Amino acid sequence: MPYSPKITSVDALPANEAKWIEFQKITWSDQTGTSRVWESASRKTRGKSGVDAVAISTVIRHPSRPASTIVILQYRPPVDAVCVEFPAGLVDEMEQPGDAALRELTEETGFKGKLSFVSPTIVSDPGMSTANMRLATVEVNLGEDEKEPEQQLEDGEFIERVVVPLDELYERLQKYSEEGKMVDARLWHWAAGLHFAKTML
Amino acid sequence: MPYSPKITSVDALPANEAKWIEFQKITWSDQTGTSRVWESASRKTRGKSGVDAVAISTVIRHPSRPASTIVILQYRPPVDAVCVEFPAGLVDEMEQPGDAALRELTEETGFKGKLSFVSPTIVSDPGMSTANMRLATVEVNLGEDEKEPEQQLEDGEFIERVVVPLDELYERLQKYSEEGKMVDARLWHWAAGLHFAKTML
Repeated sequence: MPYSPKITSVDALPANEAKWIEFQKITWSDQTGTSRVWESASRKTRGKSGVDAVAISTVIRHPSRPASTIVILQYRPPVDAVCVEFPAGLVDEMEQPGDAALRELTEETGFKGKLSFVSPTIVSDPGMSTANMRLATVEVNLGEDEKEPEQQLEDGEFIERVVVPLDELYERLQKYSEEGKMVDARLWHWAAGLHFAKTML
Repeated sequence: MPYSPKITSVDALPANEAKWIEFQKITWSDQTGTSRVWESASRKTRGKSGVDAVAISTVIRHPSRPASTIVILQYRPPVDAVCVEFPAGLVDEMEQPGDAALRELTEETGFKGKLSFVSPTIVSDPGMSTANMRLATVEVNLGEDEKEPEQQLEDGEFIERVVVPLDELYERLQKYSEEGKMVDARLWHWAAGLHFAKTML
C-alpha cells in the first residue's frame, strides 16, 4: 500500500444525496395495538435474490498442513480501521447467493472451491437496518505442492488475504484486535462458537 | 400476545427528523491517494463506553440437564419478522459493557449469572454502518430443583425467551428459519462455528 487510507471529512448526508443507502420511517402497530415508529437504514442495491450480501467460511484442506480458513483485511471507512472479516461481497442484481459466494471468494482470495452449504437468509443488525446476508461454506482441497492462487482484485480494491489454521483462529482474532484492527462481529461469533466447542463443552 | 405486530406504513425518513440514527458522508483518501466518498449509518445513542450494544452468549449448567443457552424471539420492524437473537441491548450512556450485559440478560430473560468473558469491541456491519458491540459470555449454574426466574420486561417490550440445549442450537435455528422467523447473523455464525467444530474438524 503506497498510502495509508485516511478520512478527510465527515459530513451529514442529506437523504436526497444518498446513492447506496436510505433511511425509512416505519410506522407499525405493536402487540397492544399501539401505533409506534421505528427508524431503519437500508441498502439500495438489493437485487432479484432478495439478499444483500454473502460471506464465505472457507475450509482449506491440505495433505500435510492443518485445516485452515481465510480471513480478509481491508480498510473500512465507516469504522475508520482495517477490518478483519470473512471474504464477502454484495450479491449482483441477477445473481444467486451461492454464485456470488464463489465469485467473491475467487476475486478476493484467488481460491476456487466447492460450495458445500449456503445458510438461509440471516439479518445483520435487525434493530437498526434491513441488511441481510447468507453465509456460504466453501471447501478447497489443495494438493501437496499446489501453489497459492493469485487474487483477482478490481482497481481500487485493497484487500489482504490471510490463511489461518482453524485451531489458531480465535487467538489470531484477539491479536488483531489488540493491534487496533476491528474484527467483524459475524466472524468473531463464528470463531467464538468454534472456540467454545473446544473449551467449554 | 393479544395482537400480531404489523407495519402500517413505510416512508422516507428525512435526516432532520431522525432521532435514533443518522447518515454520514465520509470523504476519505484511499491507498492510491485518491479522494473517495463512502456512505454510512450510525446510532445517535453511543455513550461514554464507545460501544453501542452488547449481546450475551449464556451457558446454563444444571445437574441433570444438558448444557444450554438462551435465545430470544422478538418482532423487529426493520425486517418485519420475529427475529431470533442472543439476548442483547444498547449500552446506557454511563454504563460499562459488562454491566450492560448482566442487566440486559436479567431484563430479557430473568436469569442472573457470572460474567466470564467480554469480547473486544467488534463491528456489526462495517461496510454500511459504524455500529459496534461486545459479546459477553455469562455462566448460569442452576440447582436441581431451581425454578426458572421471571423476565423483567419494560412496558411495550414483548420478548420470548427460549432455553436451547447447545447440542440442538444449530438445528433449532434452521427450524426457526424454515418457519419464517429471521435468525440474527451473529447468532447464526456462533451456532455455525459450534456446529462446524462438532462435524467438520
